Amino acid sequence: MKKSEYNILDSIDSPAELRKLSQDKLSEVCREIRKYLIKNLAHNPGHFGSSMGAVDLIVALHYVFNTPRDRIVWDVGHQAYAHKILTGRRELFKNQRTHNGISGFPFPKESEYDTFVCGHAGNSISAALGMAVADQNTPGEEDRKTIAVIGDSSISNGIAFEGLNNTSNQLNNLLIILNDNDMSIDDPVGALHKYLSEITTSAPYNRWRLRIYSICKRLGLINDRRKGLLLRFNNALKALISAQQNIFEGLNIRYFGPFDGNDVNKVVKVLNDIKEMKGPRILHLSTVKGKGFEVAERNPQAWHAPGNFDPYTGEKISKNRNSELWQEVFGRNLVSLAEDDQRIVGISAAMLSGTSMCMMMDKFPDRTFDVGISEGHAVTFAGGLASAGKKPFVAIYSSFLQRAFDNIIHDVAIQGLPVVFCIDRAGIVGEDGVTHHGIFDIAYLRMIPDMNICAPLDVDTLSGLMKMSTSLNSPLTIRYPKGKAIDLNQEITDLDPKVLNLCKSDVSIGKARKILSQGHAQTVILSIGAIGYNALKAAEILSRKGIPIDIYDMIWIKPLDKSVVSEVAEKYDHIFTLEDGVVSGGFGSAVCECLSDIGYKNKVVRLGIPDNWVYQGSISELQKDCGYDIDGIVTAIEKEYL
Amino acid sequence: MKKSEYNILDSIDSPAELRKLSQDKLSEVCREIRKYLIKNLAHNPGHFGSSMGAVDLIVALHYVFNTPRDRIVWDVGHQAYAHKILTGRRELFKNQRTHNGISGFPFPKESEYDTFVCGHAGNSISAALGMAVADQNTPGEEDRKTIAVIGDSSISNGIAFEGLNNTSNQLNNLLIILNDNDMSIDDPVGALHKYLSEITTSAPYNRWRLRIYSICKRLGLINDRRKGLLLRFNNALKALISAQQNIFEGLNIRYFGPFDGNDVNKVVKVLNDIKEMKGPRILHLSTVKGKGFEVAERNPQAWHAPGNFDPYTGEKISKNRNSELWQEVFGRNLVSLAEDDQRIVGISAAMLSGTSMCMMMDKFPDRTFDVGISEGHAVTFAGGLASAGKKPFVAIYSSFLQRAFDNIIHDVAIQGLPVVFCIDRAGIVGEDGVTHHGIFDIAYLRMIPDMNICAPLDVDTLSGLMKMSTSLNSPLTIRYPKGKAIDLNQEITDLDPKVLNLCKSDVSIGKARKILSQGHAQTVILSIGAIGYNALKAAEILSRKGIPIDIYDMIWIKPLDKSVVSEVAEKYDHIFTLEDGVVSGGFGSAVCECLSDIGYKNKVVRLGIPDNWVYQGSISELQKDCGYDIDGIVTAIEKEYL
Repeated sequence: MKKSEYNILDSIDSPAELRKLSQDKLSEVCREIRKYLIKNLAHNPGHFGSSMGAVDLIVALHYVFNTPRDRIVWDVGHQAYAHKILTGRRELFKNQRTHNGISGFPFPKESEYDTFVCGHAGNSISAALGMAVADQNTPGEEDRKTIAVIGDSSISNGIAFEGLNNTSNQLNNLLIILNDNDMSIDDPVGALHKYLSEITTSAPYNRWRLRIYSICKRLGLINDRRKGLLLRFNNALKALISAQQNIFEGLNIRYFGPFDGNDVNKVVKVLNDIKEMKGPRILHLSTVKGKGFEVAERNPQAWHAPGNFDPYTGEKISKNRNSELWQEVFGRNLVSLAEDDQRIVGISAAMLSGTSMCMMMDKFPDRTFDVGISEGHAVTFAGGLASAGKKPFVAIYSSFLQRAFDNIIHDVAIQGLPVVFCIDRAGIVGEDGVTHHGIFDIAYLRMIPDMNICAPLDVDTLSGLMKMSTSLNSPLTIRYPKGKAIDLNQEITDLDPKVLNLCKSDVSIGKARKILSQGHAQTVILSIGAIGYNALKAAEILSRKGIPIDIYDMIWIKPLDKSVVSEVAEKYDHIFTLEDGVVSGGFGSAVCECLSDIGYKNKVVRLGIPDNWVYQGSISELQKDCGYDIDGIVTAIEKEYL
Repeated sequence: MKKSEYNILDSIDSPAELRKLSQDKLSEVCREIRKYLIKNLAHNPGHFGSSMGAVDLIVALHYVFNTPRDRIVWDVGHQAYAHKILTGRRELFKNQRTHNGISGFPFPKESEYDTFVCGHAGNSISAALGMAVADQNTPGEEDRKTIAVIGDSSISNGIAFEGLNNTSNQLNNLLIILNDNDMSIDDPVGALHKYLSEITTSAPYNRWRLRIYSICKRLGLINDRRKGLLLRFNNALKALISAQQNIFEGLNIRYFGPFDGNDVNKVVKVLNDIKEMKGPRILHLSTVKGKGFEVAERNPQAWHAPGNFDPYTGEKISKNRNSELWQEVFGRNLVSLAEDDQRIVGISAAMLSGTSMCMMMDKFPDRTFDVGISEGHAVTFAGGLASAGKKPFVAIYSSFLQRAFDNIIHDVAIQGLPVVFCIDRAGIVGEDGVTHHGIFDIAYLRMIPDMNICAPLDVDTLSGLMKMSTSLNSPLTIRYPKGKAIDLNQEITDLDPKVLNLCKSDVSIGKARKILSQGHAQTVILSIGAIGYNALKAAEILSRKGIPIDIYDMIWIKPLDKSVVSEVAEKYDHIFTLEDGVVSGGFGSAVCECLSDIGYKNKVVRLGIPDNWVYQGSISELQKDCGYDIDGIVTAIEKEYL
C-alpha cells in the first residue's frame, strides 16, 4: 500500500485527537493541512488565500481550547477550511461547495463545531457575545470559553462596531481574535485599516520595546509570571511611544498584540497565556494570505478565490470565455455614461472587482468610492452625494444589500433621491450557498414607495436601462445575476425568427415587451430578468412538442406594466410568472395583486424560489431543485395541459 | 397693541437676519427661543428635552455658517426645533407634528434649510460626508461647508461608525459636531458612552491643563494666533495626562473639545476658530437636556417627550387612562413568563421604557439587556443567546427593526433560532411621521423562510401568543401597534353577542378564528392584528345599514391559515383584506397569492396603506387618508354593493 502524504492528518478525525499530540508536532500538522488544501482546491475551487493564512491559528485554537464545548465563532467563514478538515470533515471537504457536498462556510446544521452562520461580514462579535453572556447566566457553564475570529476588513462593518461597543457592557469572558491579513477581497479601506497597519509597523515602538522591557523587568515592575501585566505592557508602551490611540482600549476591551499569527507555537503560547483571563479581550494576530504557497503570497488579491490551478506550479487553469459577464456589461456601460455625464459617481462596498466597479475606478478614480464592507454607509453616502447634485451608481451584491434595507428606505427613497442601485449576483449564485443567494431583493424593494425596479433579460436591455437611468430623477434598482451575460441574438436559434421579437427598442419606464408570439397560444409566461432565457429555451422544447406559448419580458417589476397584465388576463387561460427570486412577495406576487384587482378568473402559477432555504450547488442544479430550470418550466406548463 | 414677548425673535424670519445681529444679542435670542419652545410644547407636545439643550448650538451654527448654502445635517432631528424656528417656520411651528402642520423632524421637502431626512439615528455622518465629498468634486463648490450634528447615543450606531471610518478616506472638509447630552431616550449604554463621559470629567486633565498651557505659551510653543494648534493642544495634553485613548484621533479625525455647548458665545468662538480648517474634524460639545427649564434639567428622562404640561409650573397634564397600552401588556406578560422559564431573556435597543422592557429590567436585571441604538447588534446578539440555549425576546419598534433586516435573515432565520421578535409601534404611529411609521414589517418578514409572523387583535390574544411562543422552537414575530390595547369584551357593544365569537380560545400556530358570523353574508373581511377593531366597528355600522358581513381574525400572517382562505373563496362573493401596513407585498398580498393558487374567481380588495408615503397626523387621520379607518371600511364595502 502506498504511504499517505498525510502522516499525522490521516489520524485526526476530531480536535480531541489533535489535542493528544505533543506541541512539537503542530508545525507538521499545519504543513499537511496546507498540502491538503492546495491539492483539493486546485481541482475543486474555493477561497484559497484566507484559508491558507488561517491554518496555524485554527490548529492552535483547537489545540488550546476544548472544542466543541468551547466555541469558535467564525466571521466570513470561508477562511475556516482547516477548521472543517480538523473537525471530522476531511473527506467531505473534497466535495465542499457542491450540490451534494458540505458548505463552503461553517454551518451549524452541518457540525456541532460550527457555532453560528458566518456568510456576511462582521456578525461574529455580537453572536459570540450572546453566547458568552448566556454562559455567565447559566449555572455550570461559566467556565465555557467563546472565541470570535474576525478579519481586519470585517471589523470595519457597523455591526462589528456595535458588538465591540457592547462587549464591555455585560459580564462575559469573550475573546476576540483579530485575524489581520491586511486584505479584504479588494484592498482594505478606511481609517481603522490605516490604524491597524500602523499598530503593526510602528518603528519607534519596535526600537524601544525591548530596551524598556529589560529595564522594567530589572526593576521588578513586570515579571514573566504576571502574564496579563506582561502582555499589556506592550500595549501601554505602544501608546506611550508612538502616541497611537488604542481604539480597543478606548472601548474598554483589553488589547494584546500584534503577534505573528502564522507561528503556530507562538499562537499556542499566547492563547494559553490569555485563555483564563476574565473579561473581554482582543488578540491581534498578523497573518499572510496564501501562506505556504509562494505565488499566492506574492499576489494575494488574485488568489482570494483563484478557481482551478496547477497544484505544483500555481499556474491558473482558466476557462475560455468569449462573452462578457453581467458585471462587465455594467462596468463598461458605467464608464461610457460617466464620460458624458460629470454628475455620475460610482460606489462599491469592498467589491470593486466583483462588481466590475474597478473599471470606473481605473478611469475615474476621483469619482469612484470603495467604502469597505459598509453596505449601510455606502447607501447613505450615496444619498448624501445625490442630495448634493451627483448621480451615484451603487453596485452591491443582492444578499449584502439586505444590510442596507433601512438606508434605502430612510436615506434614499423617502427623499426620492436619484440613486441607481445596480444589484449584482441577484438570483441564485451557486456554490457560495444559502447566505449568498440574492433572492429577496425584488420582494424587499417593491414595497418601497417611489422605488423603480427593473431587471434586464439581455445585454442590450441592461445597456438601455443604464442609459435611461441617467435622466431619471428618482431611485432606481437594476438587478442582474451572476455569470455570463445573455446576447439573445446568439442564444436563441431553434425558434422561428418570425415569432421572436428581439429587436433593440429603447426601454422606457414601466413598459414590458412581448418577445415571443407564436399565435393561438393559450399559455403565457410573464418573465422578469435574465431568467427569461430559461423561458425561451423552454418555449423551444414546448414548440417541438406542439405546445405554443407566448412570452412577455416584463423588464419592470415596479412600476409593473398593468396594461400588459390586463391584456394577458383577457387573452390567456394559463398565466405563468417566472423570476429568479422568492415567490413570497416577489414579482409573481405583484402580478397576483394586479390580477386580483382586475378579477382574473384562472389560476396563476408562480415559478421561482419556494418558501425554503436554498443551499449550495451549481446554479442550474439549484434552479432545478426550485423547479424553474428549463425542464422545470416545461414540466410545469405540460402539467396544466394534462 | 400688546408688546410681544419676543423682541428679537419676532424679527428673525431667516438665518440671514440672525446673522445681522451683533454677537451680544445671541444670548437673548436663545432665551426667547426657549420661551417660545416652552410655550408651544406645553400645548402641542413634542421632543422637549433635547430641543431645549440644542438651542445655543443651533443659534451659533446659523450665526457662524452661511446657511442654507452651508449645510447642517441633523441626526435624529427632533432636537432641531430651534432650527425650524430660525428658518422661517416660527409660525408653522405651532402646528408641528399635526395632520396639516409641519413635520417634527427636519425634512428636505419642507425647507431648503433641511438637508437630509433624519428620523433614524446615526445616518448624519455618512450623508454629510456624501455632500462634503460632492462639493470637493464640483468646481465652484469647494468652499461650501457641511456640518453633521450627532448625539452621543446616535454615534454608537453602526452606521455612524461606518461613516467615521470612511471620513478620513476621501478629500473633504466635513465638520462633525458631537452634541453630548449624556442621554438617549433611556440611559445611554456602551463603551463609547463611558469613554465620552470620561473624556469630559477627567480630573487630572483639568488640574494640569492650565498649568501646562501657561508654560507652553511662555516658551512660545503655542500662541493664540495658531488656533488649530492651540485647540489640538488640549487634546494631546489629555492623552498624555489621562492616558485616555482618543478614538476619533485613532480614526484619523481631528478632535476638539469638550466645550460647553450651552454657552452660545463660546460655541460661536470655537466654530469660528475651526470653520476654515481643512480635512474632517470632530467638535465635542457638552449640553444639558432640558436646559433653561429647571424641572426638565433635573429629570431629563421624564422630559424627553413629556406630553402636555403647565408652562409655568412644569406640572405635567396627564390624560386619564384606565386601560393598558399594548407595550404594557407585552411587558407584563414577559415578566410573568420569565418567572417560570429561566431561559427567557429580554433585549431592547435604547427603548426600555418605550417598549415596556423596563418591567423586565426591574424584575430581572441580569436577564435584560439594553444594547443602545444598535438594532443590528440587538438581533445578532439575540441569535447568539438563542444558540446557547436562551429564549430571547427582542422588543424593537417596527421602523427601527428595518435596520436589522439582514440580521434577522442571516443571524436568526437561516439557523431557525427560537428568537421572539416583539415588534412594537407596528402600523401607523401618528405624529412622528414618515420615518417612524411601522408599515413595512409584514411585507419584509413574510418572505423569510422559517419565520412565523402573527398579530393579535386583542389583549387576550397577545397574552396567548406570548405564552405559546415559549414552546416554539423557531423564529417568531409578534406585531402590535402603538397605543391603547383592545379588550374586545368591553369595546364591541352594538353587535348582537350571538354573532360574536370573542371567547378566549387557546391560540395555535397558523390557526385563524371567525370572530363575526352574521349569516347569509356575501362579504367577508380577513383582518390581521389590532386593526380588526376597525372591522368590527365597521360591521356595527354596516349591520345597521342592512349589510351583514363576516369577519375572520386571521392572527397569523405566516403560516397563513390556508384552509380558511379556501373556505372563504368557496363561500363569499366579496373578499376584503385588512391590515395596518403596506398593501404591496403585505398580508393582503399573501392572501392574493393563496387565492391565486386556488383559482378564486372574484376580485379581492386589499385595505391597508397604498404605495405612497404617509406623513404626520393623528393615527385616525392617517388611517382615514389611507382608507382603512372605520368609515373607510364601510365605504369600501358599500361600494361593492352599488
